[in-house]
Amino acid sequence: MALTQARTMPGTLELLPPDQIAFQRMLDTVRFNFERFGFLPIETPVMEFTDVLLTKQGGETERQVYFVQSTGALEKSAEGLPELALRFDLTVPLARYVAEHEHDLNFPFRRYQIQRVYRGERAQRGRFREFYQCDIDVIGKDQLSIRYDAEIPAVIYSVFRDLAIGPFTIWLNNRKLMRGFLEGHGIADVKQQAAILREIDKLDKRSQAAVTDTLAGEEFNIPNHVLADIIGLIILESRREEGSALTYLDTIEQSYMKKLPGDPSLMKEGIEELREVLILMRAFRVPETHYAIKMSIARGLDYYTGTVYETTLNEHPQIGSICSGGRYDNLASNYTRSKLPGVGISIGATRLFWQLREAKLLHAAASTVQVLVAQMDETLLPACLEIAAQLRNAGIATEVVMEAGKLGKQFKYADRAGIRFVAVLGPDEVAKGTVTVKDMRKQDQVEMSRADLASTLRAQLAQEAPA
Amino acid sequence: MALTQARTMPGTLELLPPDQIAFQRMLDTVRFNFERFGFLPIETPVMEFTDVLLTKQGGETERQVYFVQSTGALEKSAEGLPELALRFDLTVPLARYVAEHEHDLNFPFRRYQIQRVYRGERAQRGRFREFYQCDIDVIGKDQLSIRYDAEIPAVIYSVFRDLAIGPFTIWLNNRKLMRGFLEGHGIADVKQQAAILREIDKLDKRSQAAVTDTLAGEEFNIPNHVLADIIGLIILESRREEGSALTYLDTIEQSYMKKLPGDPSLMKEGIEELREVLILMRAFRVPETHYAIKMSIARGLDYYTGTVYETTLNEHPQIGSICSGGRYDNLASNYTRSKLPGVGISIGATRLFWQLREAKLLHAAASTVQVLVAQMDETLLPACLEIAAQLRNAGIATEVVMEAGKLGKQFKYADRAGIRFVAVLGPDEVAKGTVTVKDMRKQDQVEMSRADLASTLRAQLAQEAPA
Repeated sequence: MALTQARTMPGTLELLPPDQIAFQRMLDTVRFNFERFGFLPIETPVMEFTDVLLTKQGGETERQVYFVQSTGALEKSAEGLPELALRFDLTVPLARYVAEHEHDLNFPFRRYQIQRVYRGERAQRGRFREFYQCDIDVIGKDQLSIRYDAEIPAVIYSVFRDLAIGPFTIWLNNRKLMRGFLEGHGIADVKQQAAILREIDKLDKRSQAAVTDTLAGEEFNIPNHVLADIIGLIILESRREEGSALTYLDTIEQSYMKKLPGDPSLMKEGIEELREVLILMRAFRVPETHYAIKMSIARGLDYYTGTVYETTLNEHPQIGSICSGGRYDNLASNYTRSKLPGVGISIGATRLFWQLREAKLLHAAASTVQVLVAQMDETLLPACLEIAAQLRNAGIATEVVMEAGKLGKQFKYADRAGIRFVAVLGPDEVAKGTVTVKDMRKQDQVEMSRADLASTLRAQLAQEAPA
Repeated sequence: MALTQARTMPGTLELLPPDQIAFQRMLDTVRFNFERFGFLPIETPVMEFTDVLLTKQGGETERQVYFVQSTGALEKSAEGLPELALRFDLTVPLARYVAEHEHDLNFPFRRYQIQRVYRGERAQRGRFREFYQCDIDVIGKDQLSIRYDAEIPAVIYSVFRDLAIGPFTIWLNNRKLMRGFLEGHGIADVKQQAAILREIDKLDKRSQAAVTDTLAGEEFNIPNHVLADIIGLIILESRREEGSALTYLDTIEQSYMKKLPGDPSLMKEGIEELREVLILMRAFRVPETHYAIKMSIARGLDYYTGTVYETTLNEHPQIGSICSGGRYDNLASNYTRSKLPGVGISIGATRLFWQLREAKLLHAAASTVQVLVAQMDETLLPACLEIAAQLRNAGIATEVVMEAGKLGKQFKYADRAGIRFVAVLGPDEVAKGTVTVKDMRKQDQVEMSRADLASTLRAQLAQEAPA
């Protein structure tokens, strides 16, 4: 019989067990922290009705959407598109979820969601067509206190501290501040404001000169003295030290807001929001070594209306933002007349994992298996199984070698697989009621009574477990 | 602006947070037990290439497949089907995974996989188009010891004991035993054997009379005395008590195998395999109150070649099997010439959850949020946030009420949401350095020092946490 070649679609990240374990630990850490801050889990179906999913998007997004159809139902919807499509983010499904279940939810609704999303990207190294997003959002009804904007960086700090992937910085800004600054300079058209902010947001990826050139171009038509003021503002970022962010904010108020030729009120509102967020972040105990304000952070999306966040690894700026988000005025205006303001962030876990692995920042994860029960002699299998049952009842993940073989080979297997302990039972041990345990990390070997086995190993494993 | 109606595709189970928490706990329990037995995690992409996915299937399965296409790539494959399709189980992706990564895996390869699968079922109450499967398999290279067949029921026992959804029974049989029985009666055609086993498998759902009538029909052409012997065998099931399964197996050997007119060797092989499994299950400490042999369990799929399993809830037989599987000779013959025998099971978690909820067997889950920090007065917010930071650092999931309001309302919110503790800070408490904690379950209220808060609550929460 001819074989079919076993292969996966490009743009997916399928992992071997050791990497899958490391990835799963990353997701578990994220989830633990989301729950620790009182966010509730939801999951949504991977498919949405096409008309629900593509309500507001179009163009680029639509070309990237994966459509779904069952063989039995090939008919297309009125617009000629298939009836179902895969979600491309977790924000549209959240909006649909909140609108659909509005009367069954408590507001502010604090949800987390860790699921895969799908984008028909061109196949390219480091670009994924299937990837995990880890999102949190707080959704208010009619209004939502600015205080939640200060809670979000506390969650970000807690997540990345626990992920232990090196020093990081949470960058903050406020879109009202930026739009207000442009308004005070006479740029009142909201679309033009948005276009300028999209250019400003590229400052990190391009260069100051390149952004200046673009903004000086005909398309934007910005007077020279205004352009100089814009560039002066957007290159500002506070230092990551006690009090710096608030001091910088005062400077911005004095040197930029107060000198605006036009109406400064929107910029003032933005500054005051950002100030309140910065002050509250202290009460949330986010250390200022880990955050700063940065005037070029604007987020590409017009969807955001107030506070915006990005997060970068200090020693790996080339990775770009690993956690981004912000405040928005209205989550679900396509589905409900209720006003649902919110604030949230998203971590692209698949891309982050891939980049950490590329940068060799991933430590080889220990196996999920904690003890391997070796087997020297087939007649001892029942004793081995008893030991295993005892360990498993104590919550210790245990694998049993089912067929007797050379002990050296079994040690080697445990070592390669990252299994910490090997329990060995020979006829001597069985007679004495003991077990010999080899610690593969410390490379030492201890004989202990069966009665002590589970508690001893549990104590040693607990020493290294994450909090 | 016209609104789009927020709605989800029928045949999906989207949950509100309290149910999602209960469902997540179910999946966590399953995963914990899979890991405890030394199974390693893998995940595969939701989409497979159509030619890889549909290698051997056809007919019914094909009509139920969801095909996927991105707008940019509408071209179809040679056979006229779209290039990609959603997985309909976790077995085909496992076969593809093992064949693709064969040289990077250790054998026996013990993997678990907890992901959603997709089937274009007709919309119907209790039928799902998107549902979770929780699978474990042990895959050998060239050969795999029968001992692994005895380990599987130990995992099943451990999972359903911990899920605490009432008494259950693991039913065992062996397809060699059944096929050998038919062979010994002169029914040598493998296809006819398979067809008869499919009918036998329906005994629980139909009736003894209905199955007898079907097997007596022209299609099967079974002589009357053989039919009587078949019916006599398939109604046998052992009692769930010490030694019963092995005694029944002896009876089957004496009363059925030894009286076969033809060659009993295949039936003998099946009996010996089942006997070895039953003996080893004792060493795995599976209590015989929780398993039995049952001769009508044959599994519909010809894929299984030896031991087969089903699991039912004693008090809810109408739910049917909640965990099924068995031994197979060759996992991935479509993708590789390597012989890969294995044994595994699958739990359909979404359907199980839905049915438990329908049968009112689900206990209302406590919230993932463990403490709500109430707020009486806006000036005390920083103190509230400090308490929250302290609790979160101790790993306690904590939500803070961000806007001061009536305490009664805040208690009510905690009660409805299933949050166990409410921490209250008034000006008195702040002055004294204390917190008042209300236990919503016990309905008592204790004032304690801030220094003791985290450790006291942690101890109380730990008392009720699962092992």
